[in-house]
Amino acid sequence: MTSHAIAVDVGGTEMKAALVAVEPGAARTLRQTRRRTPRGADGPSTAESVIDAVAEIVAELRADADADAIGVVVPGIVDEQRGMGVYSANLGWREEPLRDKLAARFDLPLAFGHDVRAGGLAEARLGAARGMRDVIVMPIGTGIAAALVFNGQIYSAGGHAGEIGHVDIGHGEPCPCGGTGCVEAVASSAAVARRYTARVGTPVDGAAAVADAVRAGDPHAAAVWQEAVDALARGLVTLTAVLAPEGIVLGGGLAMAGRLLTDPLAARLDEMLLPFHRRPRLELAELGDTAGCLGAALLATEGLQR
Amino acid sequence: MTSHAIAVDVGGTEMKAALVAVEPGAARTLRQTRRRTPRGADGPSTAESVIDAVAEIVAELRADADADAIGVVVPGIVDEQRGMGVYSANLGWREEPLRDKLAARFDLPLAFGHDVRAGGLAEARLGAARGMRDVIVMPIGTGIAAALVFNGQIYSAGGHAGEIGHVDIGHGEPCPCGGTGCVEAVASSAAVARRYTARVGTPVDGAAAVADAVRAGDPHAAAVWQEAVDALARGLVTLTAVLAPEGIVLGGGLAMAGRLLTDPLAARLDEMLLPFHRRPRLELAELGDTAGCLGAALLATEGLQR
Repeated sequence: MTSHAIAVDVGGTEMKAALVAVEPGAARTLRQTRRRTPRGADGPSTAESVIDAVAEIVAELRADADADAIGVVVPGIVDEQRGMGVYSANLGWREEPLRDKLAARFDLPLAFGHDVRAGGLAEARLGAARGMRDVIVMPIGTGIAAALVFNGQIYSAGGHAGEIGHVDIGHGEPCPCGGTGCVEAVASSAAVARRYTARVGTPVDGAAAVADAVRAGDPHAAAVWQEAVDALARGLVTLTAVLAPEGIVLGGGLAMAGRLLTDPLAARLDEMLLPFHRRPRLELAELGDTAGCLGAALLATEGLQR
Repeated sequence: MTSHAIAVDVGGTEMKAALVAVEPGAARTLRQTRRRTPRGADGPSTAESVIDAVAEIVAELRADADADAIGVVVPGIVDEQRGMGVYSANLGWREEPLRDKLAARFDLPLAFGHDVRAGGLAEARLGAARGMRDVIVMPIGTGIAAALVFNGQIYSAGGHAGEIGHVDIGHGEPCPCGGTGCVEAVASSAAVARRYTARVGTPVDGAAAVADAVRAGDPHAAAVWQEAVDALARGLVTLTAVLAPEGIVLGGGLAMAGRLLTDPLAARLDEMLLPFHRRPRLELAELGDTAGCLGAALLATEGLQR
């Protein structure tokens, strides 16, 4: 049975929208469109502007196609159970009842979610971890937070789940969060660039440039890279002990390095995991920046089958 | 709507069984009985003996009461999805398809589960964490493993979930598992007794005796106890960062110390959690050794509502 969803992924700068045909285990994007995310003068007015823009983009995609449901995902801290945009640094809102405000604009069922968790669900159902029931999807960018998919469903914990970036793994360096030893203080894309710059004394253009330097045989880059790999491995060993996922999917900027990241990381995991741990499959994300939209479509159509 | 379940909690030495009336948010035990867990000459024959004993005890409880379903929980490593008793050190079985073998004995729907996780579900639905959606239930005994309840459902990960006892929190002491720095190497009931004995040079009768010594002002006991509290706090901070449960329920031998455990633990958690972490409620388990049976009853009746 195929359902048709209109999916909207509201980003800090851009909104992506698509008409998606969803059936069990598969999704096809039939049409898509993008536009700039509107900004109001303050957070609440940005929320209203975003809701207006979602309504417009949905109307545009519905103009020449039937849809069964709408899915909208937004960034920041999102509480799916309460339907709240709890906080968005980029869009400025706090405690906005976005689900109800959005639902009031449409005559179709509406699902509301979090961009990263919805993207994680898409990787679990349609992407790098398809066929797996228990999956951790970890985009590594400026920060590190994981989307957790347990029993095939998003685990949100009121919007607080997945803060693996701020687990203390004992390296002792301070983190802007106020803690010390945090995974992301050494292993985020931003940290890799920052720590390489601190080591060699000259600025570098992001983690991708550090990856290039590793490939070119730069020993400082290799040291910073290995420290990032070690920190990620320690974080993933903790997640594996407690959560025993079938798969861990790496995405975001750092994962653009591909096997330069996954090969040494898999080797460290093999060294560190104990015999009784379930070995997770380590995969690179497959859906790129379409994951959020596909996840929104999954959330939208899932509601129909209840 | 009330359903009636016959619940059996197979322990390493004793089987507990009950006729339980379950309705949403409540359960009443109408009859209960216990008997010694039978042992065969080897693992597979113990499995057959246990299945026979379960059949007998169910027949006994059904003799003068109607039941809608049967729930059976067993110890060791259990894979609920596959219905397998993967391994039990006490009962000797490996890869026993217990769910199917049990189901073949009865003309009622049968649910099969893990004793600790089922007990955790019971604490989440009926006990110390009732009303909470996301709960970690942590019995602290010879070892430390957590039952995870996410979105109101047991999270099993093929039987591997919840090994918080073997997360490296950096204390550097070796653990029999082969790792170092494990939570349970310092914080389990067994570790508390062992470490106190090592410190004072005379054997002690379990963690309860160490707790008594703490209350009596013994500085060695206080030091060992505080180290256990610190280790638990570090483990719980990691769990809180990643899983953000609404509640953490402590059970098992060490939790018999009550507020001697929870007061300093709550204080350490308050010091260590960062502002963006969701504060979990810290509770003592309420259901004691009836949790497994009640959990089996919940699993049995849940199947009826699907």
